[in-house]
Amino acid sequence: MATEIQYSQPSGAVSHVAGFQSAAVSCDIRNKGNDRLDLCILHSPAPCNAAGVFTKNDIVAAPVVQCREVLSSGKPVHGVVCNSGNANACTGGQGDEDARTMAREAHTQTSSPEGSFLVCSTGRIGELLPMGKITPKIAECAGSLSPTRENAEASARAILTSDTKPKEVLAQWQEDGKTVSIGAIAKGAGMIEPNMATMLAFVFTDAEIEAGLLKELLTNATNQSFNRITVDGDMSTNDTVLLLANGASGVKIGQDTPKALQTFQDALNRICYDLAHKIVSDGERITKVVRIEVSGALSSDAAEKVCRAIGNSLLVKSSWYGNDPNWGRLVDAAGYARAGIQMGKIDLHYDEVPALLQGVPQSGNKPEWKTVVSKKDFTIHINLNLGEGTGWILSTDLSEGYVNFNKSE
Amino acid sequence: MATEIQYSQPSGAVSHVAGFQSAAVSCDIRNKGNDRLDLCILHSPAPCNAAGVFTKNDIVAAPVVQCREVLSSGKPVHGVVCNSGNANACTGGQGDEDARTMAREAHTQTSSPEGSFLVCSTGRIGELLPMGKITPKIAECAGSLSPTRENAEASARAILTSDTKPKEVLAQWQEDGKTVSIGAIAKGAGMIEPNMATMLAFVFTDAEIEAGLLKELLTNATNQSFNRITVDGDMSTNDTVLLLANGASGVKIGQDTPKALQTFQDALNRICYDLAHKIVSDGERITKVVRIEVSGALSSDAAEKVCRAIGNSLLVKSSWYGNDPNWGRLVDAAGYARAGIQMGKIDLHYDEVPALLQGVPQSGNKPEWKTVVSKKDFTIHINLNLGEGTGWILSTDLSEGYVNFNKSE
Repeated sequence: MATEIQYSQPSGAVSHVAGFQSAAVSCDIRNKGNDRLDLCILHSPAPCNAAGVFTKNDIVAAPVVQCREVLSSGKPVHGVVCNSGNANACTGGQGDEDARTMAREAHTQTSSPEGSFLVCSTGRIGELLPMGKITPKIAECAGSLSPTRENAEASARAILTSDTKPKEVLAQWQEDGKTVSIGAIAKGAGMIEPNMATMLAFVFTDAEIEAGLLKELLTNATNQSFNRITVDGDMSTNDTVLLLANGASGVKIGQDTPKALQTFQDALNRICYDLAHKIVSDGERITKVVRIEVSGALSSDAAEKVCRAIGNSLLVKSSWYGNDPNWGRLVDAAGYARAGIQMGKIDLHYDEVPALLQGVPQSGNKPEWKTVVSKKDFTIHINLNLGEGTGWILSTDLSEGYVNFNKSE
Repeated sequence: MATEIQYSQPSGAVSHVAGFQSAAVSCDIRNKGNDRLDLCILHSPAPCNAAGVFTKNDIVAAPVVQCREVLSSGKPVHGVVCNSGNANACTGGQGDEDARTMAREAHTQTSSPEGSFLVCSTGRIGELLPMGKITPKIAECAGSLSPTRENAEASARAILTSDTKPKEVLAQWQEDGKTVSIGAIAKGAGMIEPNMATMLAFVFTDAEIEAGLLKELLTNATNQSFNRITVDGDMSTNDTVLLLANGASGVKIGQDTPKALQTFQDALNRICYDLAHKIVSDGERITKVVRIEVSGALSSDAAEKVCRAIGNSLLVKSSWYGNDPNWGRLVDAAGYARAGIQMGKIDLHYDEVPALLQGVPQSGNKPEWKTVVSKKDFTIHINLNLGEGTGWILSTDLSEGYVNFNKSE
């Protein structure tokens, strides 16, 4: 029997994970003269194994380079320091230096070993970080670290940019009479605010898991979540997902505990999916979330291409915004994915309502298609009836508000 | 010395090409109860060699199938019959039959040989053609064929859908004391109107050119024009470019007349480029045309990927709409083309104004970048400084009007 996992979305989710503490401060990085939280530290006094998954963009921001260096060193990790408001991307050698300075300041002020802090930044591209403001605030932030719910919630807010709300999730279950927790926070989808970059997700667990296995678990979970969302198709220079495991629960999970390992993978998958869904749902000026499911493709790669062509089509996304069940545009987009599809074989359903069967429009159902497409959340099922390949993606509509929001700095 | 070619954009351009006649009528295909022209015939009493280039979409409309059949038969072609308002796409076996009926009616009514007419359709996807309206009107249209400027201009209008103006171009030059002409008409970019498909271009010449060579010339010209434009990245089910050559000028062009052949290729390239530019400029609710030029890529394929990533980025297109010279978004999009680019090597200019040199922002020029990006037509030059690959594309901005226009039927 599968272990029962409790999922919840409490404010201050990370405070429920044993052995982690956090704090957030305001550096006024954007020079707005306000006290918006824009820097946080998430810290484990005990050493963590850690793994990361990063943007595949050729152009990567300085903090991504810094994280990769730390993770490839194989040394234990003690925490993450993250700022919002400035992505430290396309900032040259000085940017690399600034990311290292942030890490150094964080490990020094938390009395952690050298090379044990990961750095993340999100915000404007192409501007140097105001280090004169940031460095002293890292000290202040380190001085207020605590495991309280309030501090965890403040950290979840400090990483946001154009997001309208914090994104926090928690999974907990029993393993040998001990509680294992995974708590996580995330921020906004893809390229979001004017000039802003980045999706960030930080996942913390008190299980003890070896670093190589952690990477495998995180890659599996990411492929079924963050890698399957699209708001505008723009992949940022800073996209980062981190997973830190400090072992504070006293539960050790590995290849020798296959049932516990499966439970952890299940919980991690769900944590990442829920965060990904929250990110999509909070996409810039979107009005609905659409899940596209393709089956019967010649391969899973082909299925994914069809999903992405549909999920990124401006015409399709505009029609969803208008509550228009426009199967012609869907089929056209599926066709230019060049996945070898054939009109005469396509079955297409809006939720459970048939729109095409073997390529033939079921036009009598048109009012019902319209009802489905008018919802805030619906699924389009496409069976290409060619092979065994399947895929899915979470997408959104495209609103006039998106264009207005992104038209200038 | 290169032959001097006269380029112009007269109303009724095709009437300047010897031996072609045309006519347009209204069938009220959209059931609007108005007399908007929506069907035309372009006809050559003398037999033509012909070539075509078509959409690469997996899903192709019935008229595309019909055109391919005619062209692959190798028989002489006598004309094109085209309707707007309905794309005859995703219409199954009945759609194929309807396309054949249109061709049969056109060749019969013009007393041309069987199998000598090409059919094109553009408009709504997924609805059967109202053949009861169309068939009698083909007879009426054939009965009013004439080589007049008025009829040619009416035909240029009859193929339009959401275009705001007809698109006509003409090239003429002297070859051995005889005038050679290429006249052409086109309609709208990519997927345009709500539910509407198709870019169509019909090119007519009175030169005599062998069919295989004609295909080669047309492919070359298309690769440097229609294949390098993007409004919304959506490739339609009906995209078609046709070239008909009837030899009525008395000038024969072939591999044995290399200078005349080069002149023809030059003229055809320019004709196709000018039509492509007109199509982009008339894209749905666009406010500006942007040429993206990439050089120094590892290959031309890589350069083209970078061009397309930038030209199709919603964030980049939204920023152009807002007159925002947002090089960060450009570089981000270039990076996710995965063409192996390196930030520290990029030179980027807005027209002639440097924005990045070896990856370093030339921020003192910011006011000048803004002036360039505020123009209706500008060029972005990106030198990746990695290799010899070059590419370019014509793109547009993305306006709130586009989304509003496409949000429902």
